[in-house]
Amino acid sequence: MAVLIEIVTGERAVTDRLSEGGLTEEVVARLGATSDPRLREIMQALTRHLHAFAREVRLTDEEWLAGIRFLTATGQKCDDVRQEFILLSDTLGLSSLVDLINHSDVESMATEPTILGPFYVPESPWRDNFDSIVEYDDGGEPTIVRGVVRDASGAPIAGAVVDVWHNAATGFYAVQQPDEQPPTNLRGRFRTDDEGRYEFRTVRPVPYPIPNDGPVGQLLRDTGRHEWRAAHIHMKVSADGCTPLTTHVFDRESDYLDSDTVFGVKESLIADFVPDEDGTLICVYDVVLRRDEGSVHP
Amino acid sequence: MAVLIEIVTGERAVTDRLSEGGLTEEVVARLGATSDPRLREIMQALTRHLHAFAREVRLTDEEWLAGIRFLTATGQKCDDVRQEFILLSDTLGLSSLVDLINHSDVESMATEPTILGPFYVPESPWRDNFDSIVEYDDGGEPTIVRGVVRDASGAPIAGAVVDVWHNAATGFYAVQQPDEQPPTNLRGRFRTDDEGRYEFRTVRPVPYPIPNDGPVGQLLRDTGRHEWRAAHIHMKVSADGCTPLTTHVFDRESDYLDSDTVFGVKESLIADFVPDEDGTLICVYDVVLRRDEGSVHP
Repeated sequence: MAVLIEIVTGERAVTDRLSEGGLTEEVVARLGATSDPRLREIMQALTRHLHAFAREVRLTDEEWLAGIRFLTATGQKCDDVRQEFILLSDTLGLSSLVDLINHSDVESMATEPTILGPFYVPESPWRDNFDSIVEYDDGGEPTIVRGVVRDASGAPIAGAVVDVWHNAATGFYAVQQPDEQPPTNLRGRFRTDDEGRYEFRTVRPVPYPIPNDGPVGQLLRDTGRHEWRAAHIHMKVSADGCTPLTTHVFDRESDYLDSDTVFGVKESLIADFVPDEDGTLICVYDVVLRRDEGSVHP
Repeated sequence: MAVLIEIVTGERAVTDRLSEGGLTEEVVARLGATSDPRLREIMQALTRHLHAFAREVRLTDEEWLAGIRFLTATGQKCDDVRQEFILLSDTLGLSSLVDLINHSDVESMATEPTILGPFYVPESPWRDNFDSIVEYDDGGEPTIVRGVVRDASGAPIAGAVVDVWHNAATGFYAVQQPDEQPPTNLRGRFRTDDEGRYEFRTVRPVPYPIPNDGPVGQLLRDTGRHEWRAAHIHMKVSADGCTPLTTHVFDRESDYLDSDTVFGVKESLIADFVPDEDGTLICVYDVVLRRDEGSVHP
């Protein structure tokens, strides 16, 4: 009797053995019960790609467990002011990819977008053109940034909002140093004049490391990478009847332009910081917005 | 001058615009600096599949942020006794896939493996054949499990270790109810006799829900799925000169065999629980191990 059972079990084991691809399709089919069609599409695609990854690399038990531990530590590193999963997304280029998917248009003459980053604070103070955004002297190099906001036809856009923020010579944004920098230091909103012009005084931005004392910092070290971002000024530009733009202006003399750790650099976003007669750096940066009659001025 | 700059910027923007695929290859190239070749392979493959997923579904900014929040909440749900990322892996079929990749052999006549699950506790008490593993009466149906451990040629294996654990009639494992069940309730290690036989007394296992008060439980509900596992007894079987086996025995009369929420059921692992004359359920389950001269008896 025991022998008979063993033979039956053996036959069944061979004929019904689940294949790796068969398992993936079983999970995908199970997710077919999702009532929200978009969630269904996302979860089914996620499952296929996740399984394809594991099959391709022949993921071992130990590697799977190392992945579980890494993800757990990444979640547990997060708090009110630290988002380690966004750092992970940034350093794997996923944030830049999502930005490309949603905000790029290869047919457009508009200025290229790049990622928002974690240091944006809404409601920066309104300032007048030519004013300074420096509220705390840390010895940074005096700089003037100016340019014209236009549409793709070349027509200047009056009354466009140019919202800018960047780090101090110490490497830190105001939001990172609440005990040292005034909260509105190196932040400000400007409106373009009748000829579409904006201009503000500031100090030169500097390269800075992303937070590197967590699992993402360790992963960067393990993969032979550094944690530095190239020096840049963030800009959000919006105007009536135009698609809002979120981008950076990079300093052409910065280190790390070729290896920005979050993959935010685009060639078209690099600008020159050129000294004038008195040594003040001048950065001329024009912005082209895409016309979109559905967009309402914020 | 401003017009000239605008034209140059516009030309560069078009000719140098980064494509989605170009970005992926840039990240993959950056990871090429990883000194450990296996980590390099895994991270490059992970990046390609993660990016392919985002491109395929055209992931929006809001969906990306929802994913970041879900992963963060999953990590923050973990503690010493709760591993939400393993639940996520289980319910996406990844754990079963890794098990298939590493422990299945379609050419083999050996018993199919399945996942270890989160409730395994090493060093269960040694017990004698025919003994009971029930240390706490919760009214479960009396059951005897017996079988023969063999190799693929049909030869019985004497001295094999059969390590078993399962849940009580309440649905809980001893490790989940430290204040109610003795810690070694429904756990035990047995050695096969000279004819390869093992046998133990227990109660019938019952279906149970995986922990559903976290992000994974919410995801199951959002995708129209339940949180139930089909009733099963866990087994780890090992012997000198054989590849160790981790598997389950499923009760053919259990609910959820077709929809086990962690994709652990395999047809060959389903067994009958048949009442004898006095009503005790008998489950006959033979196990076939794969010969592997490199394996040493634990």
